[in-house]
Amino acid sequence: MYKGKTMSDLTLGESATFTKTITEADVILFAGITGDFNPVHIDDVYAKTTMFQGRIVHGCLVSSLFSTILGTKLPGYGSIYLGQESKFLKPVRINDTITATVTVTEMNVERNRCKLETTAHNQNGELVVTGFATIMPPKA
Amino acid sequence: MYKGKTMSDLTLGESATFTKTITEADVILFAGITGDFNPVHIDDVYAKTTMFQGRIVHGCLVSSLFSTILGTKLPGYGSIYLGQESKFLKPVRINDTITATVTVTEMNVERNRCKLETTAHNQNGELVVTGFATIMPPKA
Amino acid sequence: MYKGKTMSDLTLGESATFTKTITEADVILFAGITGDFNPVHIDDVYAKTTMFQGRIVHGCLVSSLFSTILGTKLPGYGSIYLGQESKFLKPVRINDTITATVTVTEMNVERNRCKLETTAHNQNGELVVTGFATIMPPKA
Amino acid sequence: MYKGKTMSDLTLGESATFTKTITEADVILFAGITGDFNPVHIDDVYAKTTMFQGRIVHGCLVSSLFSTILGTKLPGYGSIYLGQESKFLKPVRINDTITATVTVTEMNVERNRCKLETTAHNQNGELVVTGFATIMPPKA
Repeated sequence: MYKGKTMSDLTLGESATFTKTITEADVILFAGITGDFNPVHIDDVYAKTTMFQGRIVHGCLVSSLFSTILGTKLPGYGSIYLGQESKFLKPVRINDTITATVTVTEMNVERNRCKLETTAHNQNGELVVTGFATIMPPKA
Repeated sequence: MYKGKTMSDLTLGESATFTKTITEADVILFAGITGDFNPVHIDDVYAKTTMFQGRIVHGCLVSSLFSTILGTKLPGYGSIYLGQESKFLKPVRINDTITATVTVTEMNVERNRCKLETTAHNQNGELVVTGFATIMPPKA
Repeated sequence: MYKGKTMSDLTLGESATFTKTITEADVILFAGITGDFNPVHIDDVYAKTTMFQGRIVHGCLVSSLFSTILGTKLPGYGSIYLGQESKFLKPVRINDTITATVTVTEMNVERNRCKLETTAHNQNGELVVTGFATIMPPKA
Repeated sequence: MYKGKTMSDLTLGESATFTKTITEADVILFAGITGDFNPVHIDDVYAKTTMFQGRIVHGCLVSSLFSTILGTKLPGYGSIYLGQESKFLKPVRINDTITATVTVTEMNVERNRCKLETTAHNQNGELVVTGFATIMPPKA
């Protein structure tokens, strides 16, 4: 029952998205899972003295939203995640609503691998994270 | 008081580590934060039918441990995380104990940027994730 | 509707209990809230090399169970928690079932304060935490 | 690699701190772990009718920050936490930024025990929790 798109189901340029408001609770839990208690994420008084002027969301939390799409929508279940390259372009703040998008940009049918562009935008349409994912879609 | 290593404090080849047992609770919470409910992570019956023969940990959870070191140990507080490239080489299973390591491999003093190799090994010494981080250390 | 026992409702020697199995998820979340990533709590490989021979529960998590009883059962709602003294006598392990008990041992009616003995036992009846709480019960 | 300060590494008067903004998510999770559903922590409507004029943070959550420092910074890894005495002096509110401090005040080299003063201040510099911890530092 859990079957994503195989290479022959995929089309170049095809894309899928996932949108989520990143709450304070998400940041607290993410710090708890990863141990990343960098004060820029969990000390509001300090964070206000930085160039960010307040607490920011862990970049890795934002780029993890790509995995959500890759594993559940495009290509979906049964995909094997081989790699991710991400550039963190702008800070994401608590309560920002992030739309992550993945778009098929390269397909290597012989090796059953595809590359997808991965972008994340905030509620103002600003590009906050960009990069590429390498995926092995489920086999036919 | 929150001041990590500036470029002149860093040395090529310098490294730091962080170790954590990745529990079922971590995986459940990570799914909850990111929405990555790929059944290979949260459906044990299904996961047993896959090539992984059981639930595996989200790759992005493992690579997020690099951020923990980069932001709190090396270079530490005040670092700006510009990018991460990760290759997911082997599955990480629930209850694996992962040691993440970052090592300074390139220093561009003029642009105040450094590149660090990022590796994660499991309790058996197997390399599970490898890659590079790009960081702007805190300024002097 | 939220009204606990006032000083005149309380009796010397009166006690109340609360029992909970402390799971791995509790320990993970507690580390996440407090930032206490001491490896004896979150690195199973390391913890096995210590005198504890495995991960142990944060002592403060166990002693926090007294607050549960004091604030919700005895004296209950409206109590003001003035202080706690705890001695951590034995390690608590993940999946231990802890019974916390508070017993009224001193009542100062004039100052509206009472002292309660606080003890925690594991499923084998071993005393793991002992101490005293100082409380101001709700006023009449 | 996990080795904190032994008795001979410690100095009387030495101190270390940890700062964290205590968020609503922390309070909710702490209630979930401990079962302390005292309405003053989780019922905002009720809490506004009390002398606190709003929800307050569990005192034990605040005093648990001492454990974070003791187990990871001073004395650090390998320390054994023998006891804690805490006085809750002022309410801590959701979103307060708390700085916990521990300071070595007594050293008993023969018995390998030290006592540390433990204080917590809010963002306005007000002392909210005070007390003492008793610790057995790691052995040489």
